[in-house]
Amino acid sequence: MAEEDNITISISGTKFEISKDTWSCIESNLQEKHGTKETSQLYKVTKSGDLFFERHPNCFPVVLGYFQNRGLHMPSSLCPSEFNDEMEFWGITPDKMENCCYSRYVGFFDDQNVLKILDNDQTARKNERKEIEERTRGTGWKAVEAKVWSVLEEPSSNIGAKIYFYVSAAFVIVSISALVSGTHKTFKRSLNLEEWQEFFGDEFDTYKAYFDGSDLSNTTMPPLPKTATHLDFLVYIEYITVTFFTIEIVMRMVFCPFKKKFFISFLNLVDIFALLVMYSKYVVNAINPKDKYQASVFDIVHCLQIVRVFRLFRLVKNYIGFRVLLYSVKASAIEVMLMSMFLVVAMLMFGAFAFFSGDTVFESIPDAFWWAIVTMTTVGYGDVYPTIGLSKLVGAVCAVTGVCLLAVIIPIFVNNFLLFYAYSKVWGSSINENENEKKKSTSSVSPIQVKEKSSSSLPSKSKNTDENI
Amino acid sequence: MAEEDNITISISGTKFEISKDTWSCIESNLQEKHGTKETSQLYKVTKSGDLFFERHPNCFPVVLGYFQNRGLHMPSSLCPSEFNDEMEFWGITPDKMENCCYSRYVGFFDDQNVLKILDNDQTARKNERKEIEERTRGTGWKAVEAKVWSVLEEPSSNIGAKIYFYVSAAFVIVSISALVSGTHKTFKRSLNLEEWQEFFGDEFDTYKAYFDGSDLSNTTMPPLPKTATHLDFLVYIEYITVTFFTIEIVMRMVFCPFKKKFFISFLNLVDIFALLVMYSKYVVNAINPKDKYQASVFDIVHCLQIVRVFRLFRLVKNYIGFRVLLYSVKASAIEVMLMSMFLVVAMLMFGAFAFFSGDTVFESIPDAFWWAIVTMTTVGYGDVYPTIGLSKLVGAVCAVTGVCLLAVIIPIFVNNFLLFYAYSKVWGSSINENENEKKKSTSSVSPIQVKEKSSSSLPSKSKNTDENI
Amino acid sequence: MAEEDNITISISGTKFEISKDTWSCIESNLQEKHGTKETSQLYKVTKSGDLFFERHPNCFPVVLGYFQNRGLHMPSSLCPSEFNDEMEFWGITPDKMENCCYSRYVGFFDDQNVLKILDNDQTARKNERKEIEERTRGTGWKAVEAKVWSVLEEPSSNIGAKIYFYVSAAFVIVSISALVSGTHKTFKRSLNLEEWQEFFGDEFDTYKAYFDGSDLSNTTMPPLPKTATHLDFLVYIEYITVTFFTIEIVMRMVFCPFKKKFFISFLNLVDIFALLVMYSKYVVNAINPKDKYQASVFDIVHCLQIVRVFRLFRLVKNYIGFRVLLYSVKASAIEVMLMSMFLVVAMLMFGAFAFFSGDTVFESIPDAFWWAIVTMTTVGYGDVYPTIGLSKLVGAVCAVTGVCLLAVIIPIFVNNFLLFYAYSKVWGSSINENENEKKKSTSSVSPIQVKEKSSSSLPSKSKNTDENI
Amino acid sequence: MAEEDNITISISGTKFEISKDTWSCIESNLQEKHGTKETSQLYKVTKSGDLFFERHPNCFPVVLGYFQNRGLHMPSSLCPSEFNDEMEFWGITPDKMENCCYSRYVGFFDDQNVLKILDNDQTARKNERKEIEERTRGTGWKAVEAKVWSVLEEPSSNIGAKIYFYVSAAFVIVSISALVSGTHKTFKRSLNLEEWQEFFGDEFDTYKAYFDGSDLSNTTMPPLPKTATHLDFLVYIEYITVTFFTIEIVMRMVFCPFKKKFFISFLNLVDIFALLVMYSKYVVNAINPKDKYQASVFDIVHCLQIVRVFRLFRLVKNYIGFRVLLYSVKASAIEVMLMSMFLVVAMLMFGAFAFFSGDTVFESIPDAFWWAIVTMTTVGYGDVYPTIGLSKLVGAVCAVTGVCLLAVIIPIFVNNFLLFYAYSKVWGSSINENENEKKKSTSSVSPIQVKEKSSSSLPSKSKNTDENI
Repeated sequence: MAEEDNITISISGTKFEISKDTWSCIESNLQEKHGTKETSQLYKVTKSGDLFFERHPNCFPVVLGYFQNRGLHMPSSLCPSEFNDEMEFWGITPDKMENCCYSRYVGFFDDQNVLKILDNDQTARKNERKEIEERTRGTGWKAVEAKVWSVLEEPSSNIGAKIYFYVSAAFVIVSISALVSGTHKTFKRSLNLEEWQEFFGDEFDTYKAYFDGSDLSNTTMPPLPKTATHLDFLVYIEYITVTFFTIEIVMRMVFCPFKKKFFISFLNLVDIFALLVMYSKYVVNAINPKDKYQASVFDIVHCLQIVRVFRLFRLVKNYIGFRVLLYSVKASAIEVMLMSMFLVVAMLMFGAFAFFSGDTVFESIPDAFWWAIVTMTTVGYGDVYPTIGLSKLVGAVCAVTGVCLLAVIIPIFVNNFLLFYAYSKVWGSSINENENEKKKSTSSVSPIQVKEKSSSSLPSKSKNTDENI
Repeated sequence: MAEEDNITISISGTKFEISKDTWSCIESNLQEKHGTKETSQLYKVTKSGDLFFERHPNCFPVVLGYFQNRGLHMPSSLCPSEFNDEMEFWGITPDKMENCCYSRYVGFFDDQNVLKILDNDQTARKNERKEIEERTRGTGWKAVEAKVWSVLEEPSSNIGAKIYFYVSAAFVIVSISALVSGTHKTFKRSLNLEEWQEFFGDEFDTYKAYFDGSDLSNTTMPPLPKTATHLDFLVYIEYITVTFFTIEIVMRMVFCPFKKKFFISFLNLVDIFALLVMYSKYVVNAINPKDKYQASVFDIVHCLQIVRVFRLFRLVKNYIGFRVLLYSVKASAIEVMLMSMFLVVAMLMFGAFAFFSGDTVFESIPDAFWWAIVTMTTVGYGDVYPTIGLSKLVGAVCAVTGVCLLAVIIPIFVNNFLLFYAYSKVWGSSINENENEKKKSTSSVSPIQVKEKSSSSLPSKSKNTDENI
Repeated sequence: MAEEDNITISISGTKFEISKDTWSCIESNLQEKHGTKETSQLYKVTKSGDLFFERHPNCFPVVLGYFQNRGLHMPSSLCPSEFNDEMEFWGITPDKMENCCYSRYVGFFDDQNVLKILDNDQTARKNERKEIEERTRGTGWKAVEAKVWSVLEEPSSNIGAKIYFYVSAAFVIVSISALVSGTHKTFKRSLNLEEWQEFFGDEFDTYKAYFDGSDLSNTTMPPLPKTATHLDFLVYIEYITVTFFTIEIVMRMVFCPFKKKFFISFLNLVDIFALLVMYSKYVVNAINPKDKYQASVFDIVHCLQIVRVFRLFRLVKNYIGFRVLLYSVKASAIEVMLMSMFLVVAMLMFGAFAFFSGDTVFESIPDAFWWAIVTMTTVGYGDVYPTIGLSKLVGAVCAVTGVCLLAVIIPIFVNNFLLFYAYSKVWGSSINENENEKKKSTSSVSPIQVKEKSSSSLPSKSKNTDENI
Repeated sequence: MAEEDNITISISGTKFEISKDTWSCIESNLQEKHGTKETSQLYKVTKSGDLFFERHPNCFPVVLGYFQNRGLHMPSSLCPSEFNDEMEFWGITPDKMENCCYSRYVGFFDDQNVLKILDNDQTARKNERKEIEERTRGTGWKAVEAKVWSVLEEPSSNIGAKIYFYVSAAFVIVSISALVSGTHKTFKRSLNLEEWQEFFGDEFDTYKAYFDGSDLSNTTMPPLPKTATHLDFLVYIEYITVTFFTIEIVMRMVFCPFKKKFFISFLNLVDIFALLVMYSKYVVNAINPKDKYQASVFDIVHCLQIVRVFRLFRLVKNYIGFRVLLYSVKASAIEVMLMSMFLVVAMLMFGAFAFFSGDTVFESIPDAFWWAIVTMTTVGYGDVYPTIGLSKLVGAVCAVTGVCLLAVIIPIFVNNFLLFYAYSKVWGSSINENENEKKKSTSSVSPIQVKEKSSSSLPSKSKNTDENI
């Protein structure tokens, strides 16, 4: 047992003593990673013969543990991203990690990857806004375009834009309110004489007696159809909002600096479609005036008006909470599919079980599906419910299973949302505002080893991650 | 590779060896922060030429990592507040932190900020109590005022106050019980002759036959109106409680040491308003005695009695769990709004979808809203439910979406509550009782470097935080 | 800046260098804690003049931080209990801790305290079992008592006890099944002639015509009362189970080694009460045979049979999951009260609001309470539901509030359960089996400093904690 | 206080100084573990007299703490598996650990044990696939068998297999759709003349009048039974799918390389059973043609068709999310039982309470059970609900208890799922793909101390764990 077997390694001043064998392992690994020549550049030999590395001292015990055959574990006190950088330097790939720590490692970088999406989106929005702003300072058509566009789209850019935003929001609210209230009987009235004439057209003479005050008691006239029309002010509101939205969409189309993106935007397509529906309704009414007054609630044109409801999203699209929810849904696409699959399979099973249980309240399996879904979500309307012992058992199991199934998937989805939501608070703080400046200042303060951050071998789905972490 | 390139830094005895370049980075940063002159005061040079800093040794690897261009990460084993203090000393602003750790950093200080609210409130209450107590020991009106007030408001101050509290609580319970039970038929009786006379006034003769025992079978008299009055004891209870609350509010008004605060207190306003309602009822009854017996359940004066229910809060306002809930709601205002927004948008969407699905059970969109909200909360009364295929599909999606939406927001709100609730337990322990003493004793034990804690550059919304962390 | 200002402290070999001022602070604090004399015994002075403490090296930076006026923080990597021991050695009381870390510290010891309850209970059970076992090995009445008792109460002690347990469990199940099924019409039959005679007693002649086959069509006889009796086998089962339970309770009474505890045990009281109810039923039936056949479902003796259901707990009382739930409820008593309070206040509020909203479906406020609670728990039977706009609004808010209120309190309760449940797994492992042995072996291995563990100044409610932590 | 009492130990270069007494404790413990002889091989003595161990430096303070009688605590920054390895080296058994840390320790290895199940399953599947693949490269019957089998069972193996998978999936979907839709009236038609003849058999003459256009008004013929048959195309679909599944199952039976496993596979048994049911139906119909058209929905053969629904699992069995759910259920078997027990006990209690509350809507206790379960899951159909005060109270408590009971157990189950789900992501990454290679490469890089990993004394249920951790 001679001391000469040992080599002292100083990691930023913290001394580690290792056997020569261990050192040769480490050295050969470093050479494999950085090349034989470059490896000797990585450390200095001090007077006393120590090998001096300017690395993180708390990470080296992990490296030691790995080369002394004690397995690669990630200490929980280190940020996985920092740990990843160090392991990279020492030439240890993450797939060497023990399973107990590896799932935490993978989880961390998965989370970072989804946060990346938010960051990219946020950055893209910021860049776009910046470009518009720059163009505004220019001259010519581009500048006009940018100026008008910032009024139309960037409520925070100037006072005019803010006013415009509130006006536009008011129109959206009025338009949706009109749609909603127009279906309620409070906002309907019976037809007047003129409208009845228009309604009946040539047949008006048949019904004439109703309107000229004749005695109706002894006639065998066909009864008046139950027809109602919107109150007049709703009609006027509709005309006004349609006009406004038409003008707006035309302006937005003309002044949009990114024409291509414009036509693939969901909200723009909704706007255009909603207007087309309105105009086609006017055309149809003009051709066949009778339709106008009929309770033709469910003809196709009428139903398509539902797209007007999507204009709601114009009000909330800039709200950070809403964007976070949207991205959570996107990031959890696979979990949402999983939940749907679970629910569909469970619905099929319990629906079939309930039907074959012999309970006659379930007229067919498709009918039983509705019951199963209502039970699994614990809504329990009570329109259908088991009435015999066997089906009650199926119902009880169905309810408990439903609660469990939903409880199983929702946390994954919710965790994504909470992660995104917590992360979205970072935007409010100063860090991202001057991100570029930060990068510069960092390098100005510590200009020593501005080597390229070597591309890390993360198990990341997209290579984008490397830029940020 | 000469050793002279290296400088040894001793952080409270833990040795770090860094290259001269790295040290110059650190030094320039320190100078930027503390001024060129003062920087040399921050450390001592030992005989062997080491630079000796009396700082936290476990934090220095982080500093090193930053200046060696390995990024700024916050180790999870350190309390973020301690980490923040150290980074401040080394002149590193938190916005240099990598995103992976920064969101945890921001989250910690966000939490500390909201806890601050609780602390401030708790301290304010304690100070107020202390002031009252001090005044009690004085003489003159102030002392009388304070003494009576402590009986009226501080149940824990003395035995009289405790008795008064229970008496007062009993009156609140009796008052609310009377209100509640008074609406139930068990506590109602039919009118007696006198009351019928009062009820009918001049018209009494018309109904006379009902009361004088005549044969009623052949008359065509108008039927007796269905009228009932409260049992007598309820009326007496009402008189007694009104008297009590009147005396109490007058006493509280007279003896309150903080008159201004008195009139902006929600509970006091409720008390005053509730009494005004009672008195106005008596005035109305005196003018028009007939009203007294009428089942005029929904006239305005009657309905305003509902404010009496708010007196409940007088019973629970001193209960720590209730205060925590209140502050959670306040602190989660933004999340509550978010949830409301999500629910309203979803309600609008699903309501409209259900209506336009062609299911005639939804008479109008506003009616469908009620269905949507009942479905999304999974209450599912069953008063309205989809009856056709398409609307059943909408209903199923609506139920699942509702469960998810609620599950998404509630955790944020709940986490705030749990954080507050856990923190509120600290009050029960000794720490806050002798907080002032602690500060003194600390400084008496370690009188060395009583420099002002330099104001930290936290990303905190309010500067209050700095005082505590 | 002379080096002589510094003192080197070696904490188990890890060197810390501190200024003399800091050392004098530490020293005076140690003297305050351990006495001036004893303090010098705590450390040795090495040749090189270092002060050598045989303590935890990772805790000393915390001590340093405190004495260098940087505040007392608890590193998350240390177990709070270990941290507490170290702080005690250095004479730092936990109330000096910063608030950010203190709430975690308090939480940890709160948790340890509640776990203590489980541990004590478990130990008490084990000791009792051990005592019984020891007595079994003895002679005389005590041994017989213990032997019989272990058969009656300790299913795991021997094969006879196991058989007895299953027999006893079977009787419990049969008894409850008989009670349950006896209420269902499948297990009822109409009376036979003899029983009718007994039923009518002297009046039998009036009804005679029903049983002698006369023509009943033209008589104006009173109809036969609708009476049914249990199937005969149920009656026999009842007799058998009553006999069994009577014998059992007598045996348990006679052979119980802990007579005092016997009569305060809930399950024994239930057993005795259930038997008393049965016997009183027989007495009542003997006095008044008519009662036996009457559908007197809700007379007092009949209703008291419900206590038989509590025998269920005899089946599950040894099940660890059930005991954990029981202790969670006990430990969460304050949270359960909080939830009840929240629910009651919310019920009162929403009940009153719904009633005063003018919706006539709410006949009185107490009726509205039922609706409120059904809505808040999202059960939503649909027996009462709002029918007008205002009350629908109240209903919607009520449902959402109810979901949130429950979501707010349940996690606290659930966390207690999860903590207990995770902890209960420790019992299954080897640690507690040979706890005494462990204590001995520990001291045999390391016999150096068997100083009394000084009583720690934990913020614990009960002093019991100290024994364990 | 002489320095000679102290011994310096260097753990991979980190120096610890301990008293001789402590060292003798450590030494005797090491000797107990490794044998007196081998102990001296564990360390080297350096020139300066230090004892040099090549172990993890951060773990030694824990060892020290234990031998200095300060208790054994597990630092949260270390991976428990790594900690376990170190403790093993130092001869400290985990049962010495303090309770505060031990429950975390046990929890970690419990989790690792359940993850083991997933890993083993995943590995078994991979090995099986590999074997098949290897056989494919061979010749003879084995190769043919393997080739056909990989087409039938391994959709990812080659293009033919993929096509076959989609064809097979389509047949499953069509088969289930036919089953489901066949119960709905849209897919039924009334019988034609031929079928009526077959239906009535010899009795056809009685009903002849219905079909030959005679005047039916004055006859007293028995009415036509309400009978319907499936639309023809459904019948053809049934024939086709039955043929397909028959061929498939025969092929699978013939070409399965693991015949024994084949017949214990749930899905294969389902397939065989489903086909048997179909064929027995045809046999029954052939014998008694009348049955074919009868709405004999609930005869045994018809009901057994429900097994066809289980074919659904063939579609999802390869989906990772589904497998994770399956394993969560298996791993949580004890918790699922616990939940069932809680629910059953609560159902019994509340059912009995509700019945004995005197509310006549509960006709018997078994009926009340259904109400209790519907209330506890908050489904609340509204088919039965309390109508009097006492039972409403029972109902309210029942609903709240139900919510709490479910909330208490579900998290344990959900945590298992989340753990499994997070872990299953590891499979997607590179680590498991080349697990074997990794083991080799590890040993090639660090060939020094390839001692057998000594079998660890984990508190693990199965010894399998040791292989991985």
